[in-house]
Amino acid sequence: MSQEKIAKPEVAPALGRRKFLNTAAIASIGTLVACTEKPATPGASVPASAPAAGGDHSAAANATHLKPGELDTYYGLWSGGHTGDMRVLGLPSGREIHRIPCFVPDALVGWGITNESKKIMGTKADGSLKYTVADTHHTHASYKDGNYDGRYAWINDKINARIARIRLDYFICDKITELPNVQGFHGIFPDKRDPVDEKINYTTRVFCGGEFAIPMPNTGIEDASKYRSLFSCVDAESMEVRWQVMIDGNCDLVASSYDGKLAATNQYNTEMGAHYEDMMSAERDACLFFNIARIEEAVKAGKFKTIGDSKVPVVDGTHEANKDPKTALTAYVSVPKNPHGVNASPDGKYFICAGKLSPTGTVIELTKVLEWFEGKLEKLDASIVAEVELGLGPLHTAFDGRGNAFTTLFLDSQVVKWNVEAAIKFHNGDKAAKYVVDRLDLQYQPGHLNASQSETKAADGKYLAVGCKFSKDRFLPVGPLHPENEQFIDISGEKMVLLADHPVRGEPHDFIIFKRDLVRPKQVYDLNEFPLAIKDPKESGVVRNGKKVTVKLTSQAPAFSMREFKLKKGDEVTLILTNLDKIEDLTHGFAIPKYNVNFIVNPQETASVSFIADKPGVFWCYCTHFCHALHLEMRTRMIVEA
Amino acid sequence: MSQEKIAKPEVAPALGRRKFLNTAAIASIGTLVACTEKPATPGASVPASAPAAGGDHSAAANATHLKPGELDTYYGLWSGGHTGDMRVLGLPSGREIHRIPCFVPDALVGWGITNESKKIMGTKADGSLKYTVADTHHTHASYKDGNYDGRYAWINDKINARIARIRLDYFICDKITELPNVQGFHGIFPDKRDPVDEKINYTTRVFCGGEFAIPMPNTGIEDASKYRSLFSCVDAESMEVRWQVMIDGNCDLVASSYDGKLAATNQYNTEMGAHYEDMMSAERDACLFFNIARIEEAVKAGKFKTIGDSKVPVVDGTHEANKDPKTALTAYVSVPKNPHGVNASPDGKYFICAGKLSPTGTVIELTKVLEWFEGKLEKLDASIVAEVELGLGPLHTAFDGRGNAFTTLFLDSQVVKWNVEAAIKFHNGDKAAKYVVDRLDLQYQPGHLNASQSETKAADGKYLAVGCKFSKDRFLPVGPLHPENEQFIDISGEKMVLLADHPVRGEPHDFIIFKRDLVRPKQVYDLNEFPLAIKDPKESGVVRNGKKVTVKLTSQAPAFSMREFKLKKGDEVTLILTNLDKIEDLTHGFAIPKYNVNFIVNPQETASVSFIADKPGVFWCYCTHFCHALHLEMRTRMIVEA
Repeated sequence: MSQEKIAKPEVAPALGRRKFLNTAAIASIGTLVACTEKPATPGASVPASAPAAGGDHSAAANATHLKPGELDTYYGLWSGGHTGDMRVLGLPSGREIHRIPCFVPDALVGWGITNESKKIMGTKADGSLKYTVADTHHTHASYKDGNYDGRYAWINDKINARIARIRLDYFICDKITELPNVQGFHGIFPDKRDPVDEKINYTTRVFCGGEFAIPMPNTGIEDASKYRSLFSCVDAESMEVRWQVMIDGNCDLVASSYDGKLAATNQYNTEMGAHYEDMMSAERDACLFFNIARIEEAVKAGKFKTIGDSKVPVVDGTHEANKDPKTALTAYVSVPKNPHGVNASPDGKYFICAGKLSPTGTVIELTKVLEWFEGKLEKLDASIVAEVELGLGPLHTAFDGRGNAFTTLFLDSQVVKWNVEAAIKFHNGDKAAKYVVDRLDLQYQPGHLNASQSETKAADGKYLAVGCKFSKDRFLPVGPLHPENEQFIDISGEKMVLLADHPVRGEPHDFIIFKRDLVRPKQVYDLNEFPLAIKDPKESGVVRNGKKVTVKLTSQAPAFSMREFKLKKGDEVTLILTNLDKIEDLTHGFAIPKYNVNFIVNPQETASVSFIADKPGVFWCYCTHFCHALHLEMRTRMIVEA
Repeated sequence: MSQEKIAKPEVAPALGRRKFLNTAAIASIGTLVACTEKPATPGASVPASAPAAGGDHSAAANATHLKPGELDTYYGLWSGGHTGDMRVLGLPSGREIHRIPCFVPDALVGWGITNESKKIMGTKADGSLKYTVADTHHTHASYKDGNYDGRYAWINDKINARIARIRLDYFICDKITELPNVQGFHGIFPDKRDPVDEKINYTTRVFCGGEFAIPMPNTGIEDASKYRSLFSCVDAESMEVRWQVMIDGNCDLVASSYDGKLAATNQYNTEMGAHYEDMMSAERDACLFFNIARIEEAVKAGKFKTIGDSKVPVVDGTHEANKDPKTALTAYVSVPKNPHGVNASPDGKYFICAGKLSPTGTVIELTKVLEWFEGKLEKLDASIVAEVELGLGPLHTAFDGRGNAFTTLFLDSQVVKWNVEAAIKFHNGDKAAKYVVDRLDLQYQPGHLNASQSETKAADGKYLAVGCKFSKDRFLPVGPLHPENEQFIDISGEKMVLLADHPVRGEPHDFIIFKRDLVRPKQVYDLNEFPLAIKDPKESGVVRNGKKVTVKLTSQAPAFSMREFKLKKGDEVTLILTNLDKIEDLTHGFAIPKYNVNFIVNPQETASVSFIADKPGVFWCYCTHFCHALHLEMRTRMIVEA
């Protein structure tokens, strides 16, 4: 179904369940949204599933409520939103097992307090942290043979254009890179194999979409038509930026193909507008494809420039420079109005864009995009094999591995299950093809969703999680700041069944769900991974070199290796603590009152802090992480002489 | 049963389930712990409940797994541990609905970023935060007529001796006070009525126990015998410190009586030792009582001193100064070895101390303590009406309102249910009195516990939550840092039934559970509560006074009131943002890339940030809190001219 065939009502859609949204604001966009309240096409005429009946739900409760001690079968990695960390969930229970600090200090771990974490986070010249806020959106993990391999995950900070890497053995952040000349770093996706080298069947690159167009370099010029955005490629191992592509329009979400040849980003602002009315003035925007092999050839051939102080090679991906398919680095496939979301189907065939301000889903066939790059497809938009109506405000799409797609409808507060091949048939003129399989009402206004293993070749169609942006009345009231509502859905049958509501602090955005046997976590650190490790309590002591003082301590429940230590006012102190306890789960904490120090050391971990001993007196440093029956008594005394 | 009657084995207890603890460390204290592995007395000879059978647990699942959209019936306020915030749970589901930032910055809210939050948290001379770490332990709420009244809750920061107040209408922290001359502020409890004025049947004071003895004032002297601890009283309304009491020994947990006359703290270090062996050298420590009316009379009469720079009156509560019961401000009741926990029974009659390194619970009758203060009881320890064996490592006690107490056994990894009146009978010689009613194995090493409404006269004996310090193998592995395990138990029947395991980030310590109708939350702010509020978008603009610039903005989905604003490099900027959206749950965020600014404004809230415009360029300030279909497009452009 082409865009032109969609009915355009002259009145705003009835507000119904979405009345909480600013009525004036909705009305003002209502006439701009090309959509109907009720599906206008036979393919879409499936009513929403009724709320789960009592009987269904009882079975559902058995699925999500594990008996005490029973383990979850799936991991979930969730972006933490503006808390700047990554959440680790167990599913189907929905229990949060861990939070991994990345971009923002974490007072539990001492992230942003220890020297080791500050080095990863980045500091200013005075040693203080460069940033203490973040806005994480998307998280994705490394691949091998089209499935997760349990090595790494990555997560983005939109505010400050940073990408963090998580080691999935220790579940810690080990590297952070700030992308040069990027503002509003939004989408992120690892590649799934190398576009050229067959042997590299695993992730070696991470693609990052820059959303806000800015001057290049960023001087304060006002004329927005001169602004540009960059698409960046980060090396998965070194975490250095390999190359960037300067483009027309912006980058929003990012997807990568299973053959490694293509990456893409949806563009909601091809108009390159500075105000929101301008950003939604065009009827169609784009899904922008990147030909990875050609880009890397261009870089190799020196066909790039650099911007400002950055040394990163930047190739030209604008329309103007990429008119010839046979040499083009980029390809702009047209999709309807302000799309949000581009997702790769697990069969490797399609990228699907959701229309946001258009009620449509657009299916793009990747072999056809590759044909265009080879000069074998005359019109690039012929790669669009379906464009069908799904409902109001489609945002993101997940898959069940059985040919069905699940798309969130923000304005309709629904998830719609639709069959991709049926949609293609319908688009090709078979009006009897019923592509919409089911609809389920959500509570309320869903953003991202993801299904178990959805973004791998092993998509298993078992569970679907949806991040609803508003919870309204679904939980006990807790003042003006409401939690969001993550809803958990059984998708194993024909009809979707809502299993559970989970409140969550804003704002998780995206997440992945995978089988628990895909990671191999380590529960105890290796002492040798820490250059400063104090391997024997006998090495403990205070080493003085003028004003520079090193305090060496070890912990073994229920005591630190020194009962007290003395400093002089003004000393420049580095305190190193190694936890010599080897037993799983035996973590210690170390707090210094009034000195703003607290951090933990897990079994066999070493951490250090540096501070000026500027306050004389007696300071009881104590263990802050319960360790032993004599935990309360586990202290050491820091005496700072005036 | 008196302390002397407890068998003292010469070998360490068998390790069994607690083998994860450092074996050497356990062994070293084993011989010091006056206890047996198996209960040695008939009163204690009840085997632990078997793990919940399938049938039982199925019913249990129905209790804790709410259907989607079903509301919880209880609130839980949980201390957040070293994340320095307060958690708000819904129970019985155990879902975390909210986190209230207090002592530590929170990047979601902008706590520690906005001027308003920085004022509450406290700053250094250069405007940066004084502290960014904390260690919250205990939270308790304000009372009226012996039950919670939904006005306030308080929470402590042990590291930096701070107390924070939470408004329970908006669920926000509104005041923080740092206690002078206190290190290791541990226990906290509000009073329940005035000791003198009958009309004041609600909370007006909060009592705070100082744990670590330090020099007074804190110079760096080494001789620990000269150190002292302070017990502090904070005014519930002004949050100023009313008075302090200098004591022998330390303060650990705190309890207050229902008649308002007594507060108490358990002391684990009456030895005033500086090393842990010294702290556990005595066979008995103490529960220290404070006579509130007399202390306030003494302050009124000018019988106090002040310490260092502090203006807070400090009265003398040491042994030496309080030998005469008729004038004594304090009374040291002896309890066995390193007690941890003192809890008031809901009938108002008793305080119960748990022995930690002694396997006993000690029941102290409050009328007898008052008799001693009146000179009517010859020996203070005659106020001990029971001292019975409970198991290994007793820590904290909760109540069901039906005469039963529930005490966590850290080393036994159990909770023991025991009947207080039966324990008194047993202690009085009735060896047939079976005071132990039930035992339940926990997973693993429980610290605090609390029952629904336990610390009020309305204790309802429905649910019990236990904070287990170690989770070991109860959840999917997530690297070296394990979650803790909060277990939720049905205590409505004779036998306890374990309902659910909940993983939680370290380390929650204490919590309270109360019926949902006791609070009356407000979901939208009152514009008039904010002096800087911009009440009309027309008031928006940039107001310049030399280098000092005020930027006034409002938000209404999907736009900020200004599309762009211009600054000059070096400007000292204060940006004020009022959210004019009035609809519940319609929160906006405001981020400035590269300027380390992100904060939210809830409906009708105003917040401000101050910064130096030191980086020239174009900066897209954007809404970070999903608000509308055009949320992504909701931006304003900050142009900083070089």
